[in-house]
Amino acid sequence: MRQRFKPWAKEKLLDNPGVVSLEPESMKGKWSSFFGNDNPIHIEVGTGKGQFIKGMGKQNPSINYLGMELYDSIIITALDRILEDGTSNVKLIRADATHILDYFETGEIDRVYLNFSDPWPKKKHAKRRLTHESFLERYETILKKQGEIHFKTDNQGLFEYSLHSMSKYGMIFQDVSLDLHKSGMDNVMTEYEEKFSEKGFRIYRMEAQFRS
Amino acid sequence: MRQRFKPWAKEKLLDNPGVVSLEPESMKGKWSSFFGNDNPIHIEVGTGKGQFIKGMGKQNPSINYLGMELYDSIIITALDRILEDGTSNVKLIRADATHILDYFETGEIDRVYLNFSDPWPKKKHAKRRLTHESFLERYETILKKQGEIHFKTDNQGLFEYSLHSMSKYGMIFQDVSLDLHKSGMDNVMTEYEEKFSEKGFRIYRMEAQFRS
Ligand SMILES: C[S@@+](CC[C@H](N)C(=O)[O-])C[C@H]1O[C@@H](n2cnc3c(N)ncnc32)[C@H](O)[C@@H]1O
Ligand SMILES: C[S@@+](CC[C@H](N)C(=O)[O-])C[C@H]1O[C@@H](n2cnc3c(N)ncnc32)[C@H](O)[C@@H]1O
Repeated sequence: MRQRFKPWAKEKLLDNPGVVSLEPESMKGKWSSFFGNDNPIHIEVGTGKGQFIKGMGKQNPSINYLGMELYDSIIITALDRILEDGTSNVKLIRADATHILDYFETGEIDRVYLNFSDPWPKKKHAKRRLTHESFLERYETILKKQGEIHFKTDNQGLFEYSLHSMSKYGMIFQDVSLDLHKSGMDNVMTEYEEKFSEKGFRIYRMEAQFRS
Repeated sequence: MRQRFKPWAKEKLLDNPGVVSLEPESMKGKWSSFFGNDNPIHIEVGTGKGQFIKGMGKQNPSINYLGMELYDSIIITALDRILEDGTSNVKLIRADATHILDYFETGEIDRVYLNFSDPWPKKKHAKRRLTHESFLERYETILKKQGEIHFKTDNQGLFEYSLHSMSKYGMIFQDVSLDLHKSGMDNVMTEYEEKFSEKGFRIYRMEAQFRS
C-alpha cells in the first residue's frame, strides 16, 4: 500500500491508546481486557486503511476485531475511521506480524483474516508471504483448536501458492470461491478488493481450517 | 458426453481384446501383462473419446495408459483412434469406475487422471462426483504410496468442491493452476477442453497427492 510520510501520524496514534496498541507485547494474554469483554477475537493481518475491519465490526457487534498493520502512515486512516464511528469492538495494533507470537497467547484468537496480502511473486521471497508455512505455524499457535483463516485476494499466483502451502500443512479448505463476486455470498469489501474488482479482476476466497 | 446408439460398437470392441478390456475384473493384478512390460500404469477415469490418452501415449512412450469409459458408443471412438495410430502403450477399459477396486490390485497404478468429469452440480448427487471422498478412498487403494491425481476441468463448482473434498481427505495440492491456458504449461488437450476453452472458459488444473 502506498504510504506518504506523515510526521503527525505517530503522535495521533500515541494519543489514542484505547484504540491503537503500539506495544502489543505488553498485552499478550490480556486482549479481552483491551475490549472490556470476553467476546471472541478475530484479527486481520495487514489491515491497511481498515475498511474491512470497520465494516465487519459494525456487522458483528458481538465479535472483537483487531486490525494489525505495519505502517503508521497507513494505520492512521484506519484509526480515523474507527474514531469517526465510535465502534468499540474494533481496535488496532501497529506492529509487524512476523512477531505475532510475541503479541498473543496460545489459543487467544478465534479467527485470522488475510485480505489482499502482499503477493511477493518472486520464488526467493516465498518466505515473506503471509501464507508461508512459517506463518501458518504461528497462526495455528495463537488460534483456538481447529481455528480458521479466511483469505481473500485478487492475486492468482498467491492464491495458487496458498492452496499448496496450506494443504501441505494439513489444512482443510472448508469453502473456496474462485469468483467471489459472482457467488452471491454476503461480503464486506476491502479497499484493494474495490479497486481490483472494478478493474474486472476476479476475487478468490477461501476458508481454511487447521486440522487439530 | 452425448451418446448415440451404435449397435455395431459392441462387436468391434469384442473384436479387439488386445486393446480394449471388457472384463477388467479378470485382469486384476495382471495389467502389466496386458501391456507386455513393467512400465508404470496411468489411468484416466472417464476417458470419453480418448484424445487425451492417445496424446499422452504418444508423448510418453515409456508410460502405459489405460482409459476407462462407461459407454460402448463413446469408447468406440477412442478405440478407432488407437487402432489408427498403432500406439501399443495406450489401452482401454469399458467399465464403471464405481467398481474400480475390482479391477486393480492395491498399489497397481501409478497415477490417476480425471478430465472434465461430470460435475453433478446438485448437492444430493455429490456422492457421484469422481472426487467424492468415497472415490478418493478407492484411488488411494489402487495407487502406489503418495500417488497423485491430476485433475482438469472448466467447471468452477466441481473444482471448488474438489479442493474441499481432497484437502479434507488430507491430500496435498502440489500444483494448482486457476487458468491453465495462460500458465504456459505444456498440456495435452482433451475434447471437452478444446470445446470449452474455445468458448472462453477458464480451465482449472491441479496435481493432488495422497499423504501416505
Ligand atoms: C496490499 S495491502 C492490503 C490492505 C487491505 N487488507 C486491503 O485489502 O485493502 C497489504 C497491507 O499489509 C501490510 N503488511 C504487510 N506485511 C505486514 C506485516 N508483516 N505485518 C503487518 N502488516 C503488514 C502492508 O503494510 C499493507 O498495508
Ligand atoms: C464430460 S465427459 C469428459 C470426457 C473426456 N475426459 C474429456 O475431457 O473430453 C465424462 C466422461 O466420463 C464418463 N464417465 C462418467 N462416469 C463414469 C464412470 N463411473 N466410469 C467410467 N466412465 C465414466 C462419461 O461416460 C463421459 O464419457
